[in-house]
Formats: sequence, C-alpha cells, structure tokens
Amino acid sequence: MLIAADNIQITGKQIENALKYKNPEPVSAIVTECVQAGVDIIDINTGPLSRNSEADMTFFIETVQQSTTLPLMIDTANPVAMEAGLKSCRNPCIINGFSLEQKKLHTILPLAEKYDADIIGYLLNEDSSVPLNSDERLDIAVSLFKEAVNLGISQEKLIIDPVVVPLTWDNGTFQAMEVLQTLRLLPDLLGFPVRTIAGLSNLTTGSGPVHVKKRLEQAYVSMLSEAGLSIVLLNARHCGTIEMAKAGSMLRNTGIFSWENFSPSPKPA
Amino acid sequence: MLIAADNIQITGKQIENALKYKNPEPVSAIVTECVQAGVDIIDINTGPLSRNSEADMTFFIETVQQSTTLPLMIDTANPVAMEAGLKSCRNPCIINGFSLEQKKLHTILPLAEKYDADIIGYLLNEDSSVPLNSDERLDIAVSLFKEAVNLGISQEKLIIDPVVVPLTWDNGTFQAMEVLQTLRLLPDLLGFPVRTIAGLSNLTTGSGPVHVKKRLEQAYVSMLSEAGLSIVLLNARHCGTIEMAKAGSMLRNTGIFSWENFSPSPKPA
Repeated sequence: MLIAADNIQITGKQIENALKYKNPEPVSAIVTECVQAGVDIIDINTGPLSRNSEADMTFFIETVQQSTTLPLMIDTANPVAMEAGLKSCRNPCIINGFSLEQKKLHTILPLAEKYDADIIGYLLNEDSSVPLNSDERLDIAVSLFKEAVNLGISQEKLIIDPVVVPLTWDNGTFQAMEVLQTLRLLPDLLGFPVRTIAGLSNLTTGSGPVHVKKRLEQAYVSMLSEAGLSIVLLNARHCGTIEMAKAGSMLRNTGIFSWENFSPSPKPA
Repeated sequence: MLIAADNIQITGKQIENALKYKNPEPVSAIVTECVQAGVDIIDINTGPLSRNSEADMTFFIETVQQSTTLPLMIDTANPVAMEAGLKSCRNPCIINGFSLEQKKLHTILPLAEKYDADIIGYLLNEDSSVPLNSDERLDIAVSLFKEAVNLGISQEKLIIDPVVVPLTWDNGTFQAMEVLQTLRLLPDLLGFPVRTIAGLSNLTTGSGPVHVKKRLEQAYVSMLSEAGLSIVLLNARHCGTIEMAKAGSMLRNTGIFSWENFSPSPKPA
C-alpha cells in the first residue's frame, strides 16, 4: 500500500497565504515534512481556484516539484486549473478526480486521455451523494469503468475511490465496513487488479477527542490495507498512522517476512 | 471483541516463584494490573504442573478469584489439573483447551460436558502440527465440532482457535492472512455464529525490535477484529494493543457511533 499525503490543502491558512503572496516557502516546508515522513505521493488540493486558476495551479505544481520528484495528485474540480496542472507537471501525475457527475465526465475525464495520466474515479452517485452500501458502490464502479474505457482510457490508468465517510454519520461504522467489502470485491467484479485509493482523514472528521480519532484512524488503515487498498491518502503528520499503514502492508504482503522491512525510510527529496 | 489477558504464565519467573512459595501476592498484583487495563477474561497458563498438580492449580484459581470475578480460562494440558481447576472455579470458566490430539479428545473434552464449561478447540492437526492454510483449518473445525457434539456438548460452548503462528516462520504472513480467512468462513461453515479466540502474542514471538512488534500486533488485532474474532488473548501490559482492539471493535460494531464508547473503563475487581 502506498501512502499519499493530504497536507497541501488550500483550506489550510499557511497554504492560503502562500498562494496569496506567491510565497513558495510554506508549501516547500510542508512537502519536505511529508517526504521525511516517508510518503510516496503528494496530493495538491487547491480547491476550485475561481480566479487566476491557471497561474495559481502552476504556482503550486512548480513549487512542489522543486522539493520532490514524488508523484503528484492534482486535486481540483476546476478543469481549467486541472489542465494547467497537467501541463506544468513533470513528476508522475494523477488526476483527482472524476465521478458520474456530468460536468466531471465531460471536462475532467477527457484530460486523462489527453495527458495519458492516471485518474481517480469516485464511487459517488451522479448528484454527488454517497452510495448507501457496497452493492451501490460496485454498480457505480462498473459505470465509471465503462465511461473511462469508452473514452479510450486504458483500464490500468483508473484508480477507484470507494469514498470513506465520517464515523459520526448515522450509518458511519456500517459505511466503513461497506468500503472494505467494496475493496475486496472490486478486482473480481472488474476482472483486473484495479488500483484503489481511500481518504482516511474523512473517517474522523469533525470534533472529537484527538487520541480516540488517531486510534480509530490507525485501526481502520490496517483494515484497509488488509482489504487490499493500493493507496491511502492521509495526514502525514500522523506518524502512528503511517506506521500502522506500513505494518498493515507487511502483514498483507505474503512474501518473506523481515523486521527490517518496517522502518519508514525517508525518501530522497 | 472481548479481551483476555495472557499475563499469568508459569513460564514467568514471578509466577513460578509465587507457586513455589505458595505466595499469592505476585499473582494478585498481575491480576489487578490486568483488570485495571480493562480486560474481560484472565487466562491462567499453568503449564502441565507435573507434581501436586491439583493443589497447585487450586492455588492459582483461588488466588485469582480473590482479586476478580472476571471469567477465567484454565490453560493446561494436564487433565487432572484441569479438573481441579474446574472444581475450584466459582467465576465463569473456560477450558483451554482441546484439539484432535487423541489424549485431549479423551481426557480434556469430556470435562466440558461434565462441568458444563465453555471449551476452546485448537485448529491443529492430530499430531499438533499447524495446518498449512485456511482450507485445512476449516476441515479441522468441522472435526472438532463433531467430536464436541458427539459427546453431548452444546455447540454454544465451543470456542474455536484458528492458531496464530509467528510472523518469522517461512510462511508467517501468509498464515496470518489465512487465519483471518478462517475467521470469516467459520460461521457459515458450521452454520451458527461460533465464537472464536486468537492468541496475539504468538504473532511476534522471538527476537525482534519491540516497537515494530507492537505496531504489527496492533495492526493485526485490528484485522482480527474486522474479521469477526470474538476474544483476543494478549499481553495486558500492551496498552496500545488494547486500545487498537477497542478501536477495531468500534469500527466493526455497526451500531450508532459515539466517541465515548472508546474509553477503556476499568472493571470492578
């Protein structure tokens, strides 16, 4: 299981100010922190970027690329910003993402074909509501798969996100288990070892005791790993969660076991 | 998922000396520590107790019962000691345990019927070797089930242990995943919600970095919980592992979620 950091978010004050004053330092500092924490991918969540979206996205991509050669996930619903990101991206690049929402099908999905990029597909209904269970998620996965293949996108480019919801929702724990079930059934359903991603921070979003949130996040990342998740998107400052993700991967990987496989080794910047 | 403490072990120097000098204090101290850690069951692993086995087992049971009213697991392969334990046990009591080994079938299993006690059945081959995979474990489970029912033991008394092996074995991580698979398939195979138990300490037995061992134990307890395990047997001094067991149970329990459900609340002594 690979680890993606969700720490670059426009909703963070530091990042918001970095953009406002086109100051690369706060962005670089966070990227360096994520790389040192041992992550494999950096998600760049710029939000919709209503004005100057191309220049703003280019600023983010260029800044992050100066600190790392890790793959980047470009996380925006704005197709103009997305395309600017894809143009400026020299690192391996993942579009984050599309869904059955008509606008995204018509404006985001085609960019995966145009730029030969990996793309994340969210298991959400057309109106962006969350499916009620695993069966609904699997139906949507088939639809997403067909939409992508019909546009000439190779199936290997697709990364499915089954959509983790907050535990505090009425059906929160049920949904957490349905996500695991979806991950287990997807490869057989689609007929190939489709890659998957899950946003872990969403599980414990909202108020609640930090210590309990971290333990739940750690327990769930281990379950996700066992269910065969390919990429977990998480807060790279949660060292215990990263360690648990690595421990989960070690257990799931049925190769020869070695204690040395565990140590999170910082990647070169 | 309930938590059983494996801290009372004759192989521990403190416990060995307590028995030698019939001194209840070290035993009581460990039991109190386990109860305060929030466990639900105390395992009393006396080993075979070759001489004075009845008096020795009675000493242990009486001593532990003076500190707690929690259920006890009597953990010995010696049928004479086992019966002495069952006679002196006023707390709810679990026989730990039997297997397809002929001696245990003939001397330990009948005690479950005689004393109307719960009994743990190990998924081991008749020669006590560990099955190679989940399929072999399931075959053994059916045999154990038949042996118990043929003796007039109610199926609800049976607790199946799929046998966790050390990760350092050649096929250690594979076996860890096969244990999860066994837990998932057992209820449908046997046709009722059979209870299960797993000995977690065995996973990371032997030498290895303590920090890594704990993380692997924590990741695995979360997976065990998600796979539907009923009872985890662990070292009650590993607070992080107990917290992860509780977090795993909260996620697996698809009832209404509440942050307050997490806190490990010390049980009355």
